[in-house]
Amino acid sequence: MSFNVAILGASGYTGAELVRLIATHPALRIAALSADRKAGQAMGDVFPHLRHLALPPLCTIDAIDFAGIDLVFCALPHGLSQALVRDLPRQVKVVDLGADFRLRDAAAYEKWYGAPHVAMALQAEAVYGLTEFYRDAIAGARLVAGTGCNAATVQFALRPLIAAGVIDLDNIICDLKNGLSGAGRSLKENMLFAERSEDVAGYSQGGKHRHLAEFDQEFSALAGRKVEIVFTPHLVPVNRGILASCYVKGDAQAIHETLLSRYADEPFIVVLPFGQLPAMSHVQGSNFCHIGVVADRISGRALVVSTLDNLNKGSSGQALQNANLMLGLDETTGLMLAPVFP
Amino acid sequence: MSFNVAILGASGYTGAELVRLIATHPALRIAALSADRKAGQAMGDVFPHLRHLALPPLCTIDAIDFAGIDLVFCALPHGLSQALVRDLPRQVKVVDLGADFRLRDAAAYEKWYGAPHVAMALQAEAVYGLTEFYRDAIAGARLVAGTGCNAATVQFALRPLIAAGVIDLDNIICDLKNGLSGAGRSLKENMLFAERSEDVAGYSQGGKHRHLAEFDQEFSALAGRKVEIVFTPHLVPVNRGILASCYVKGDAQAIHETLLSRYADEPFIVVLPFGQLPAMSHVQGSNFCHIGVVADRISGRALVVSTLDNLNKGSSGQALQNANLMLGLDETTGLMLAPVFP
Amino acid sequence: MSFNVAILGASGYTGAELVRLIATHPALRIAALSADRKAGQAMGDVFPHLRHLALPPLCTIDAIDFAGIDLVFCALPHGLSQALVRDLPRQVKVVDLGADFRLRDAAAYEKWYGAPHVAMALQAEAVYGLTEFYRDAIAGARLVAGTGCNAATVQFALRPLIAAGVIDLDNIICDLKNGLSGAGRSLKENMLFAERSEDVAGYSQGGKHRHLAEFDQEFSALAGRKVEIVFTPHLVPVNRGILASCYVKGDAQAIHETLLSRYADEPFIVVLPFGQLPAMSHVQGSNFCHIGVVADRISGRALVVSTLDNLNKGSSGQALQNANLMLGLDETTGLMLAPVFP
Amino acid sequence: MSFNVAILGASGYTGAELVRLIATHPALRIAALSADRKAGQAMGDVFPHLRHLALPPLCTIDAIDFAGIDLVFCALPHGLSQALVRDLPRQVKVVDLGADFRLRDAAAYEKWYGAPHVAMALQAEAVYGLTEFYRDAIAGARLVAGTGCNAATVQFALRPLIAAGVIDLDNIICDLKNGLSGAGRSLKENMLFAERSEDVAGYSQGGKHRHLAEFDQEFSALAGRKVEIVFTPHLVPVNRGILASCYVKGDAQAIHETLLSRYADEPFIVVLPFGQLPAMSHVQGSNFCHIGVVADRISGRALVVSTLDNLNKGSSGQALQNANLMLGLDETTGLMLAPVFP
Repeated sequence: MSFNVAILGASGYTGAELVRLIATHPALRIAALSADRKAGQAMGDVFPHLRHLALPPLCTIDAIDFAGIDLVFCALPHGLSQALVRDLPRQVKVVDLGADFRLRDAAAYEKWYGAPHVAMALQAEAVYGLTEFYRDAIAGARLVAGTGCNAATVQFALRPLIAAGVIDLDNIICDLKNGLSGAGRSLKENMLFAERSEDVAGYSQGGKHRHLAEFDQEFSALAGRKVEIVFTPHLVPVNRGILASCYVKGDAQAIHETLLSRYADEPFIVVLPFGQLPAMSHVQGSNFCHIGVVADRISGRALVVSTLDNLNKGSSGQALQNANLMLGLDETTGLMLAPVFP
Repeated sequence: MSFNVAILGASGYTGAELVRLIATHPALRIAALSADRKAGQAMGDVFPHLRHLALPPLCTIDAIDFAGIDLVFCALPHGLSQALVRDLPRQVKVVDLGADFRLRDAAAYEKWYGAPHVAMALQAEAVYGLTEFYRDAIAGARLVAGTGCNAATVQFALRPLIAAGVIDLDNIICDLKNGLSGAGRSLKENMLFAERSEDVAGYSQGGKHRHLAEFDQEFSALAGRKVEIVFTPHLVPVNRGILASCYVKGDAQAIHETLLSRYADEPFIVVLPFGQLPAMSHVQGSNFCHIGVVADRISGRALVVSTLDNLNKGSSGQALQNANLMLGLDETTGLMLAPVFP
Repeated sequence: MSFNVAILGASGYTGAELVRLIATHPALRIAALSADRKAGQAMGDVFPHLRHLALPPLCTIDAIDFAGIDLVFCALPHGLSQALVRDLPRQVKVVDLGADFRLRDAAAYEKWYGAPHVAMALQAEAVYGLTEFYRDAIAGARLVAGTGCNAATVQFALRPLIAAGVIDLDNIICDLKNGLSGAGRSLKENMLFAERSEDVAGYSQGGKHRHLAEFDQEFSALAGRKVEIVFTPHLVPVNRGILASCYVKGDAQAIHETLLSRYADEPFIVVLPFGQLPAMSHVQGSNFCHIGVVADRISGRALVVSTLDNLNKGSSGQALQNANLMLGLDETTGLMLAPVFP
Repeated sequence: MSFNVAILGASGYTGAELVRLIATHPALRIAALSADRKAGQAMGDVFPHLRHLALPPLCTIDAIDFAGIDLVFCALPHGLSQALVRDLPRQVKVVDLGADFRLRDAAAYEKWYGAPHVAMALQAEAVYGLTEFYRDAIAGARLVAGTGCNAATVQFALRPLIAAGVIDLDNIICDLKNGLSGAGRSLKENMLFAERSEDVAGYSQGGKHRHLAEFDQEFSALAGRKVEIVFTPHLVPVNRGILASCYVKGDAQAIHETLLSRYADEPFIVVLPFGQLPAMSHVQGSNFCHIGVVADRISGRALVVSTLDNLNKGSSGQALQNANLMLGLDETTGLMLAPVFP
C-alpha cells in the first residue's frame, strides 16, 4: 500500500530532510512539493544533494490538487499554517512541523508568538507530536503538531523524571548547545560562516525562547502544578544536533532507573549505562535520541544529558514517525537509518 | 535470500561505514566483526553511533569460523590482507578495501608500497573494483580489490575522456581537496582538530602519493601508451568528501558530451548540466558521484570536477556495490540512501 | 610623530581588521570611522571584539571633516570609491582597498566591472598596491590601489618567475582555496554556516573571476606579451586564508632559487626550503606570505604554493604597509604581529 | 631595559603562544627554549607560524645556563615543574603555567593529582596567579602559579559575587564550553579532527575535573566557609576559547553592579551592559575576558557568562601579565593585542 504526500515549504532544511527520508521510505510517494518563492524550480536545483531523485517540480500551494493527497507535511514558517490547514479538505491528514498548533492555550500562543491564533477550533483537535508520549492520540489524529526541536530534546530527558517525582521541580536548569541548521536557510548576518565558525554564544537568554511555552505547558500538565525551568540555548559551530545538559536535584541512580525503565521498549530512545554521557556526533543524520545520567560529587545533584538531530528526530524524523502512525504503518518505517559518523 | 558477511578491521572508519550501510541492507547479515586490538569490546562502545544495532562483539580474526560466511570485507591496514586472504577458504568471496590487490604488476606494488607482494597468485585473479568500469568481471570474481578513494574520484572524471581521446594525455593536472576521515582513526599529530581546523595544506606533493600507481596502471592501459598525470591532494577541514579539480586540454563541450553519454545509465554517477560545478556537500553520506564540466576562457582548456564521499562511494559504498554484484543481488541494494545535507 | 587616519566602510571585515591592526600601531590615530547604514552606532557594538578600544562612533562619510585627516583608508564596496576619492581634498592621502583603481585600462575596467570608470584622471595617478613590487612608487603616491586578495597571493608566487623567464607562460594553472571571510559580511544564502561548513566547491569558474583582470594587466606588462593564466578559486570552510597551488612548467630548482633570491630581503615574504609546502594556518592573523616549491615526478613540471591571510596581507595589512610608506614611516610598523596558531 | 627569559616546554601550544606574545613585547628577549624530545630542532620547524622569528634552537633543560636568565616560564606537563623549579637558582623568577603550585594544601594536591607533592616548601611561597585578585603578591613573588584555564574563566565571573555575598553559595552551576586547543598537542584518539568536528560532548562529568580543586580552594577561602560548585566542561569544535555559563541565585541587577564596580579599573576585564551576553569569538587571540549578566524570567535567578581565550588570558597571556608585574614592568606590556575576528 502506498500513500501520496505533499510537502509544503519544501525549500527549507526541514523540507529537504523530509524528502531525504521519504526517498527510501517504502510506502510514501511524494506527489507535490511547494515553495512559493521558488515555484517553477526543480527541487534538485534548490537542493543539489537531491538531484538524483525523480521529484515533482516546486509549485505554489495554490497549484496543488489536494484531492489525491493522503497526508500533508507543513514545513512553513511559523504563523502560516493556521489559515492554510483550516482550509484544507478534511480527508487530508496533516503533520505540521511549525509552532502553529503546539500550544493548547490561546493566550499562551498570543503571548509567545505575538499575534492571536486564527484557527483555535482546529487547535482543539491538534495532538502534540511528541510521539513517545502521545502515540495513541497521534495514531487517531487528523492534525499533529510537531514539537520544537529544543522542546523535544529536553522533554525526552525530563518527562519521565517529572512524572515519577524523582526530581525537584523548582530547580531544573537546562543548558543547550545547538547546531546551526536549526536557524534555517533564511538570511541572517549572525548566521554567516565567518560569524559562527570558531564561536559559541548564548541567545534568547533569560527565558525568552519560545520553546519555553511548550515546556511550561507540558511540564505543568505532567506535574499537576506550575513548573518553570531555566533554559538557555547556545549556538555551537556544528550543522546538526542539540545537546541538552539538564542540571537537576534528585538521586542520580533513581533518575537513571526511571529513564531506563520508561524507554526500555522505545525503538529510538537509547539510555546509556549509568555514568556515561552521550555525544552529538552519535545521533547525527538519524532519528535516535541518546540520554545519559551522571551523579554529581555533590550529593543529591545529577546531570541528565540528552542529544538528538534537530532536523531529524527534532523535526522531520519526528514528523515522519507521526505520519507513519497516522497512516497505519509501522512507526519505524523508513526511519531506521543509522547515524552518520564521522 | 540472505547472506552472511564478516567485516575484518571493523574498528576503523571504513569498517564502521560498512556496518552503517549494511544496517539497512535487506539481504546481508553481519555474522562477524574483527578488530584484533579491540577484541572483546562491543562495536557500540567503539562506535557509539551504532549502539542501537544488535551486532556480534568484536573478535580476533582467528576466532571467526569462516565456514558459514559467504563474503568477507577486508578493511585492514595496507599489507595485512595478502596473507590473510590467501589463507581463507576458497568458497568465501572477498572484497578488499585496502591497497593489497589493486596493482597487477608486482614491481609496481613493491615500488609504491615498499615491500614485495606475498600473494601474487591471488593477485592474478583479483578484479579492480571500480564498479562502473569492471562490472562484469566483478560479478564473476571471487576477489575484488577496492580502489583508492582519490583514484576513484579522478577516474570517474577522466576515464571516459581518455578512452574517447578527447583530451591531451600529456597535460592532465588534478588538484584534490580531501576530507579528513580519509586519514583514518589512527593517531597522528597533524590530524588533531587544533592542527587541521582552519587549515588547508597540500601533502604527498610532487608525485609521491600511492594512488598514482593506480592512475598509471589504469590510464596507461586505457590509452595504450604511458600516461602520467600531475596529482596533488590537499587536506581541507571537512570530515567526508573528495573534490577533484582536473585541468585538461580539450574541447569542453565534447568532454561534457562524452561524460553525459558514458554515464547516462549509471545509477550513481550524475553529470551536471554544462557549465555547472559540483560541491562536496551534495554527496556526503551517499554512494553518489557528481561531475561537472566548465570551459575555460582560454580556448581549448577545460575544467572537469568530480566529487564523492571518500568513506562511501570512495570505499565502503563501492565495496558494498561490488559485494551486491558478486552475490547476484541488484547492484544498488542498500545504497540508495540520499546524501545528508546540511 | 602621529598621523590622523579615517576608515571609510568600517563596518565590513576589512575595516574591522584595519582597526585591529591600528590599535597597536604607534604612529596612527583613528580620527574617524564611517559606515553609512550603521552611522550613530558604536564600533564596539558592530564588532564586539573591538569594544575595549576608545574609538570614534560610526558616522556617515559626509559628517567627516577631512581637514585634519592625513590619510584615508577606503574599505568601501567596489564602485563607490571613484567619485568619493575624486572629491576628497588633495592633501589627504588615500589607500583604497577596493577594486576601483586597480586597472589602468578603462576598457578593461568596464569589461570586468560592468560600468564605465568615472574618475579616470585619478586612475592615472593611482599606484598598484603590491608593496613588494611597487614600493618606490607607493612611497611617493597620493593614491594607492590595494590589490585583490587572490591577485596578491598568486602574484607573490609568479611575478619573479615570469620576470626571470623560468616558467612557460602558456601553461600556468592556479587552483586556489579561499577562506570565507573574503566574501565579506554581506548576506548571501551560500555563505550561511550550514551551507559552507563541511563543503568545498569551486566558483567563478572558467575564467570569470574579476581578479583575472589584475593578472592579465600585471603579468602581460611583466612579460612584455599577453599572458593568460587558468585560475579557479574554491571555497573552503576556514575563516581566513588563501592558498594558491600554481602548476607550472619549468625547472623546479631554478624556480626555487629565483624566489629565494628575489625575496631574500623582504620582511614579510618567507620562501620555504625546497620541497616543503606552506599551510594556511601558518600565516593567519598576520601580514606574512609563505611560499614553497616542489618538483613534480614528471620532469619539467613544478608546483609553487603561496599562502597568506586574505584580510591581512591580502587586504588590510597590505593597506597599512602601503600607508606606512606613504607617511614616511618604516614599512613594517605595527605589522610584525606573529600569526595566531592554533 | 630588557630581560632575558627562558621557556621550558616550548613545543606545546602554551609555549608557542608565549613565543607569539613575546615576539612583539618590547622588554623581553627569549634566551632559551626547551623541549626535551625535540631538542635540536628549530622552533620554526615545530611551529611554522613562528618561522619568521630569530629564535634560539630547542634544547634540553639541562643545556640551559640559567645564570643569565631573569625569568623562566614553565609550560611543562603537570608534575614536572616541582623538582625542576626547586633546583633552579634562587635569583631566577618563575612563572609556572602548569598545575604544580596551584594548591596550597598538600592533601588536596595529592587527592586531585594522584601523587604526593615533592616541593611543598616551594609551594609555601608560590602565589596563585589570578592577576586581578593577587596583583600585589604577584609583584613581589619569586614563584607564581598560573591558574587553570577553566578556573580563571569561572573565577572572573564569580569571585566578586561570592565576596560581595550577592549569590546563594549552595546553588552555583557552571556549564562550560571549551575549545580544543586546551587539550594540548598530545595524541589522543578523541582529539582527532574527524572525532571532534561536528561534535559536542561533556567530559570529566560529575565533579571529576581537576580544576575543581582550585574552585574549592579559592571560593571557600573567599566565603569563609566550604563552597562547592557544580562544574561540567563540554568540548566544542573551536580552536580557542572557553565560555562559562554560570547559573546562580541572586538579584541580577545587584550581580551586574557588583561586577561592573569591581572591574571598572581592570584593563583586561570587560563587563557588558546589563542583559547582553559575550561570545567566544569576541576575545580569541587576546588577553581580554568579557562578562555578561542576564536576569532569568524566574525571579531571583541570573545567568552570568564569562569568556576568554584559554591559551591567552587563560594561560600564556596571564603568565606574561604576571611576568610583567614580577619584573616591574607595566602589567599590560605586550598584551594589548586586539582579538582576531573573524
